[in-house]
Amino acid sequence: MNKKGLAILMRTRMRPGEPSKLALSPLADQANEMRAENKGNQSAGSSMGDGGGEGNRVLSPSSNNMRAFEQVRESMHSAISMNKTEVLDTVLSDFSEGYFSLSPENRRKLLLILAKEYDLNRVQVRQLINQYLSLELPKGDGAQGDTVEEEGLLSTFYRIERNLRHSLQPLYEVLFERLNTHPGGLKFLSILRADILCILAEDNIASLRALDSYLKEKLSTWLSPATLELHQITWDDSASLLEKIVAYEAVHPISNLIDLKRRLGVGRRCFGYIHPAIPGEPLIFIEVALLKNVAQTIQVLWDNPPTPEHEATCALFYSISSTQPGLAGINLGKFLIKRVVTLLKKDMPQISTFATLSPIPGFMQWLLSKLASQSKLAELEASSHPSADRSTSSFWENILKQEEESALLSLSEEFAAMNNGMEVMLHILTSKNHDWKNSPELLAVLKPPLMRLCARYLLQEKKRGKALDSVANFHLQNGAMVQRINWMADRSEKGLQQSGGIMVNYVYRLGNIEEYAQSYFSTGHIHASPDLLHQLENVDVQGNGDE
Amino acid sequence: MNKKGLAILMRTRMRPGEPSKLALSPLADQANEMRAENKGNQSAGSSMGDGGGEGNRVLSPSSNNMRAFEQVRESMHSAISMNKTEVLDTVLSDFSEGYFSLSPENRRKLLLILAKEYDLNRVQVRQLINQYLSLELPKGDGAQGDTVEEEGLLSTFYRIERNLRHSLQPLYEVLFERLNTHPGGLKFLSILRADILCILAEDNIASLRALDSYLKEKLSTWLSPATLELHQITWDDSASLLEKIVAYEAVHPISNLIDLKRRLGVGRRCFGYIHPAIPGEPLIFIEVALLKNVAQTIQVLWDNPPTPEHEATCALFYSISSTQPGLAGINLGKFLIKRVVTLLKKDMPQISTFATLSPIPGFMQWLLSKLASQSKLAELEASSHPSADRSTSSFWENILKQEEESALLSLSEEFAAMNNGMEVMLHILTSKNHDWKNSPELLAVLKPPLMRLCARYLLQEKKRGKALDSVANFHLQNGAMVQRINWMADRSEKGLQQSGGIMVNYVYRLGNIEEYAQSYFSTGHIHASPDLLHQLENVDVQGNGDE
Repeated sequence: MNKKGLAILMRTRMRPGEPSKLALSPLADQANEMRAENKGNQSAGSSMGDGGGEGNRVLSPSSNNMRAFEQVRESMHSAISMNKTEVLDTVLSDFSEGYFSLSPENRRKLLLILAKEYDLNRVQVRQLINQYLSLELPKGDGAQGDTVEEEGLLSTFYRIERNLRHSLQPLYEVLFERLNTHPGGLKFLSILRADILCILAEDNIASLRALDSYLKEKLSTWLSPATLELHQITWDDSASLLEKIVAYEAVHPISNLIDLKRRLGVGRRCFGYIHPAIPGEPLIFIEVALLKNVAQTIQVLWDNPPTPEHEATCALFYSISSTQPGLAGINLGKFLIKRVVTLLKKDMPQISTFATLSPIPGFMQWLLSKLASQSKLAELEASSHPSADRSTSSFWENILKQEEESALLSLSEEFAAMNNGMEVMLHILTSKNHDWKNSPELLAVLKPPLMRLCARYLLQEKKRGKALDSVANFHLQNGAMVQRINWMADRSEKGLQQSGGIMVNYVYRLGNIEEYAQSYFSTGHIHASPDLLHQLENVDVQGNGDE
Repeated sequence: MNKKGLAILMRTRMRPGEPSKLALSPLADQANEMRAENKGNQSAGSSMGDGGGEGNRVLSPSSNNMRAFEQVRESMHSAISMNKTEVLDTVLSDFSEGYFSLSPENRRKLLLILAKEYDLNRVQVRQLINQYLSLELPKGDGAQGDTVEEEGLLSTFYRIERNLRHSLQPLYEVLFERLNTHPGGLKFLSILRADILCILAEDNIASLRALDSYLKEKLSTWLSPATLELHQITWDDSASLLEKIVAYEAVHPISNLIDLKRRLGVGRRCFGYIHPAIPGEPLIFIEVALLKNVAQTIQVLWDNPPTPEHEATCALFYSISSTQPGLAGINLGKFLIKRVVTLLKKDMPQISTFATLSPIPGFMQWLLSKLASQSKLAELEASSHPSADRSTSSFWENILKQEEESALLSLSEEFAAMNNGMEVMLHILTSKNHDWKNSPELLAVLKPPLMRLCARYLLQEKKRGKALDSVANFHLQNGAMVQRINWMADRSEKGLQQSGGIMVNYVYRLGNIEEYAQSYFSTGHIHASPDLLHQLENVDVQGNGDE
């Protein structure tokens, strides 16, 4: 463990990954890094940027602030309106450095100006539309026998069509294109989009939404998998790269250096996608454990010694994390998983199962809101039609089975006094510190309904025809099937909070990936193992995950 | 020199680089390579493709040919119309392999189908245009104070605008996008475009021209310099990469292994741009010699021992070659030169001059046609107005000075009988085997007018406001200036044929690159050294390049 290693550890400790108070402050860190990289590049704007975002906001007199803003706005205008790419390098550097020196409020102001004032030239669009409508589409579509005259007409037609297409591109397209060819520009665009998304999360401004959708399309094109390099991340990588793995691991936070080293050591793999324009920083990375069997709890990975690699028959993807908030909605993970599966299959032919051990991030949120609303409805129903048969009412649904309901109500006298089993369940699940996890009695009663409802949540709850759970949707659209859910598989605070500690195994079957992806895409059909389908109806049949 | 080396040598000998008789045959070679790479990938189409382009055309019965064509057409259709990218890999492989198995005629037929039948959906475009025109542009442009209702209207407006923009993208866009994310697809698209350019060179078909212009735009985006890796090519590179350097060197053909090794050795550099999706094959490469002074003849590079690197003060770019005919018109060279200059400047601070020793590919063609037409006009003029003062006529121009004219006519009795000096010059320059190069007497008479006219050709002959010479235009738009022209600098057959053996030094002055590029771009102004400007008027002042 050398100095570099120590530095990583320090940084890890300093970065607790808590949600920040300021909308834009997560970027201050990146901004500082970027400014440090550009420090050789003296520019008009940089003297105002000292001290970074936070300092600037607090210390600068507002007139200084205003002047800095105008300078950045000016460089943005030049970057868009100048003629020749050759002359742009300084302007683009000025603009990106200047941007980082702006306060969140000024960034917002600038982005709104970009969205509104550098939009389409709509006068030109209307002119071209009129030109276009005045042309008859030439008929010469019959491949052969076109006369020279017809070809000439067609040429005009295609030209106007192309002009119209170009005129429908907003002016800010130029800025994006130019930044993309500028050193550091792609990274800057990703930060710009992260800022835009932060603003949109609070305030849905139509022009900014349009800017975002345009920028997202461009980024998708530029980050095509063809341009991404698959890199195996090892302990021999630079500290600055490993530091990013530590900082961005989103699923199972890396607690210390030993933890990181183990994740890169024997029986483990870590792969990232690197774009040549953003070197030394994977855009997304995936962590893999080589095992004898598909793991049922995450603890297996931390506690047990690694499986000797020649004995492994299963590659378990236990974490996939994206490092760029500005690339939200651009599915790089799909291609990453496909390439990693292919690579592992080639290197280790004895691996026959490719599975995940995944969180179910939306389960508890869905369940608690369901329990709250349905127990309320049940209560109202009971008071208005005290004698009616509950099961025939169309207004509410008892999401518990009769035996689950009874078991919950008979847990204690306090619970027996409650209106129904759902209220009891809600009460237990929202207790402080997830106290229920330490009571064998509560666990025994909770397990059947939680497992059954979790299967239902994963397989049957949908939004626009797709799985409601974001991680489920991700793996299903990539062609996985839902194999198994595992009780008490993640006892961490986060695991209990998100999914009551339940985790799920998705399995990628090489022969079925394309077929499953296709049927999920076209009909929303979710492939699940027979065991899991059974579990939907009757939890007693479940033959795994008990402990 | 190992086996690999030998293999390179063999291939070099086998590939004389002569223009081929068949429009599309230069691609057969690439097609075979590509098929070899894909050989693990059995597909419906591949059994018909055995034997490659040539064999197929000669041997296959036409019904087989027809069936193969229909299969490729079918896979093209699937590749465009299928829903889910996941399922496309086989289809895309089928299509690209199938395409390579087609005869030139069938490729042409298929490309025309692509251009015409997978164009825009014009019915949809008109519908959206009508929708768009029926909307009033919301006024809420004033950044602040937008009401919720206004935002809603704006949203609709932006949505229809985006739909219109998308509807103006041809259907074949989908094919291009999908191929770009498919392994080997980018290379395939570049080959596809090379085929399209071949067809267009013979037959200007409007729909195919539109297809080409669209594909060119896409390729430019995908090959943005941000995605290209600068690679220094050395003797340690793989034989398969070096083989490509040998095959594609377009300026000064590499004659044997020793020549290649020297170009990668002491006092020399070779850099290429590599795209991650086309590994092991630079898209463009540049060769550099490190020298004490700007070289005046190319022979200096071949004959002299290399300058010790610590004594070098000049980096001479003596060759830049593109390997992909399908990337014609996409200026990768500009960025390559900029990056190489930056890199060399950093590694070798003692280098203060960045210059080229460049061919003048269009000079002879321009001069001979000028001589032919003007001498003909002069003859006509002389016969119709025998006594008129030639210099006042507006119909023709004597491109020779009086003393040059006299010197040419007095060379021999045969010449004295000719109509004018231009006819003599034309006669000498078109003599077999460039015999004039061996006659000191002829050289002495030819040098003054050739050098003067060459300066004129480079600095004053333009097309649409840009230098007529393609290499001149390339360097000028990158920000170079014209420094010097050199007499008998390239005595090779090709050099004499293209430019009467004259070569030119363009110089990149670090402080002026942007300014020069800008002024050339906006006004067409060509920066030249004082010496060269003088040469335009009076060749006697020229103080260099004599030998």
